[in-house]
Amino acid sequence: MNNLSKKEMTDLYPSLLLERAVSEISKLPGIGRKTALRLVLHLLRQDVGEVESLAQSITKLRKEVKHCHLCHNISDTDTCDICANPLRDHSTICVVENINNVLAIENTGQFRGVYHVLGGVISPIDGISPADLEIDSLVERVANGNVKEVIFALNPTMEGDTTGFYISRKLTGFDVLLTTLARGVSIGDELEYTDEVTLGRSIVNRTKL
Amino acid sequence: MNNLSKKEMTDLYPSLLLERAVSEISKLPGIGRKTALRLVLHLLRQDVGEVESLAQSITKLRKEVKHCHLCHNISDTDTCDICANPLRDHSTICVVENINNVLAIENTGQFRGVYHVLGGVISPIDGISPADLEIDSLVERVANGNVKEVIFALNPTMEGDTTGFYISRKLTGFDVLLTTLARGVSIGDELEYTDEVTLGRSIVNRTKL
Repeated sequence: MNNLSKKEMTDLYPSLLLERAVSEISKLPGIGRKTALRLVLHLLRQDVGEVESLAQSITKLRKEVKHCHLCHNISDTDTCDICANPLRDHSTICVVENINNVLAIENTGQFRGVYHVLGGVISPIDGISPADLEIDSLVERVANGNVKEVIFALNPTMEGDTTGFYISRKLTGFDVLLTTLARGVSIGDELEYTDEVTLGRSIVNRTKL
Repeated sequence: MNNLSKKEMTDLYPSLLLERAVSEISKLPGIGRKTALRLVLHLLRQDVGEVESLAQSITKLRKEVKHCHLCHNISDTDTCDICANPLRDHSTICVVENINNVLAIENTGQFRGVYHVLGGVISPIDGISPADLEIDSLVERVANGNVKEVIFALNPTMEGDTTGFYISRKLTGFDVLLTTLARGVSIGDELEYTDEVTLGRSIVNRTKL
């Protein structure tokens, strides 16, 4: 049961091209070398056209995608579809951390205002300070007038709360209503499994039936 | 709580480029639209060079990778590193289903022969017949002489067994030893949790200490 010597064995992968593709794909978040190899072997079985189409779609996206000059959401044009839509309520701005949050709120079909994408939340541990976020541009939008309400739709975490608090301080002095997402028991939740902080706050902030 | 009308709402994604990249990535096996979106948003945060490097590595692989003319393993050259290695034992051919199996066996460092990649196993349900596999080329390699042993390293499934049986019939008449992977209790397994077929066969085929 002697193992083969270095000379007798070949490298881990039989092809440098394969090795390179696996390394590149395994850089993606949540994809290890085993999954990357599985994806690469799948791609090898596809038509050249299919693989080129995948490759082009990601380079084209990265190179050509723009950010809306108003809300900083990603967009194919200088002004995104939401900001350009005259039927949306431009006096209500919903402040979110990232693009995913815009998609999540749009998905509900319950919001007819516009957005402001901060690009992150204040987090000293990760080295993200207010200057790294789109906070000044939000204050500018409010200062330009015509904004009646700013809704903070940030994650209910310490960083989200800190960011909301920081921005709310920046917006004092403007005649604008500041609101935040309702917090309470989730619909469909069982009370006995709801965490005590959420349950406690939902009793204190109970609403009229 | 009226939902927004179609006109007030925008499409699911704020960008056609994003939509296209998500669709392309979600075609990959085991990757749904949510994961695809997460990967795409990750790529958007990377340098253009990084994204190009990923895209190029997969198109280059698909376009330029070759299959070894002897063993049909993937390779950067006409003859793969294993078949071209004079230190390997070219009289022992290990028959495997696909490239993954070559990688798995090479990883053990216990095999100094060469391979033959069938490209699948006989499976009438999936419409794979012997003619779709590299069986004739294997028979040809054996017929050319200098082959002493053919090892069947196929998955212990009905399809694997059928394929092994089919090939063994094709190789009758040649002066070649046909062997198969040892089957028995896995090292590190607990006997009480070993399935009865494996345990039964390992008692019948017990080996001398």
